[in-house]
Amino acid sequence: MTRVRIVGIGCHPGQLTLEAREAIAGCDYVIAADKGPDDPLLALRRTICADLGVELVAVPDPPRDRDDPADYDGAVLDWHDARAAAYGSVVAQRPGTVGFLVWGDPAFYDSTIRVVERLGVPYDVLPGVSALSLLAARHRVVLHDVGRPVLVTTGRRLAVEVDAGHDNLVVMLDGRLQATSLDGDWDIWWGANLGSPHEELVAGRLGDVVEDIRTARARAKAADGWVMDTYLLRRH
Amino acid sequence: MTRVRIVGIGCHPGQLTLEAREAIAGCDYVIAADKGPDDPLLALRRTICADLGVELVAVPDPPRDRDDPADYDGAVLDWHDARAAAYGSVVAQRPGTVGFLVWGDPAFYDSTIRVVERLGVPYDVLPGVSALSLLAARHRVVLHDVGRPVLVTTGRRLAVEVDAGHDNLVVMLDGRLQATSLDGDWDIWWGANLGSPHEELVAGRLGDVVEDIRTARARAKAADGWVMDTYLLRRH
Repeated sequence: MTRVRIVGIGCHPGQLTLEAREAIAGCDYVIAADKGPDDPLLALRRTICADLGVELVAVPDPPRDRDDPADYDGAVLDWHDARAAAYGSVVAQRPGTVGFLVWGDPAFYDSTIRVVERLGVPYDVLPGVSALSLLAARHRVVLHDVGRPVLVTTGRRLAVEVDAGHDNLVVMLDGRLQATSLDGDWDIWWGANLGSPHEELVAGRLGDVVEDIRTARARAKAADGWVMDTYLLRRH
Repeated sequence: MTRVRIVGIGCHPGQLTLEAREAIAGCDYVIAADKGPDDPLLALRRTICADLGVELVAVPDPPRDRDDPADYDGAVLDWHDARAAAYGSVVAQRPGTVGFLVWGDPAFYDSTIRVVERLGVPYDVLPGVSALSLLAARHRVVLHDVGRPVLVTTGRRLAVEVDAGHDNLVVMLDGRLQATSLDGDWDIWWGANLGSPHEELVAGRLGDVVEDIRTARARAKAADGWVMDTYLLRRH
């Protein structure tokens, strides 16, 4: 009897919810992708599992073509299939309650639900504190004006969305600081490595703070070995 | 020396994070709006404060014109001012560390940050699990297709957003089930009173499940005395 629990763990260990702790503690083991010898998210998962007395099984992550392939969606789907095959062979050998720990929340730009669906076993999902929520909290802002919408999108799509008229956007997964290519007058509330000890925050008129952001981004990358940006952009 | 901590508490007590528990326990008292004798969110806050040994000060909530006033934004701002005045008089009499507990997460369609700003005292914000994240978890979906955006908006604006071409939207604060007025073929992942013991969930083609949703909505309202809808809509 195998079942999977997908557990959002928030952006640092203090953001674990009570129900997430109980769910992880109740797993027979946790599967985590191993992206290499210095994988910081693997280290974080090891710490959480060790605290809760649960074994972590690290599974080498299939290679993924991140060099902007022409067929982006196809490359992502191939990678989901490869991950599902790797996890499926572990699960087939070790029946039980299997946990997957999702940094932040599984609802936004995360593949875990789509990969686990392919395993063909029962599963449930527990939500976590998302990077969007942490960004807003750190800057003490609501993500939209009163009664107005917010578009959540990726760096890759930012220019298209702005051309379509959006003036209030949260951008995730932007490895290239695409906001710097925008025309017009924008306010930005930017964060990198939110929840990590080397978290960086910058806010202001985009034109005024762009160099501060580049500097902070480089500092985060040097300190943590990786950098992940999330930001709110609103037309001034 | 007064400071305020705005704490997202998630959608039920099991969704409190470790840092939220610590923050609440460290407050001298918590202020909560009292909307009347059977205010369910006040009761939830009382339970959390009692568990953590913190006094709750209930402040009668200023009346708010919810009958679709022509000047919606102005009515909201007046209400923020009235709330700030009520809270400010409490804070002035009782200096210390004052908590505000926000159901879900303060980043989406919540007035607490805007009201506390008006108090003119130092404050910080801790994020919580949002109703968006819980909706997605319950339905085991990601809120967007691979690499695509999601628009988070209100029931009031839904028709306008769909006319503008949006085909993947999360709708919050919809007291009138505006999705039923849409033309076209939509999938819906709907929830009411997410996190409450009488939570209701319905998913399917909108045209097929509309009556199920109406029935579930009435059931939630009868059981909890209130109903709050959140849903994901995606063009089929």
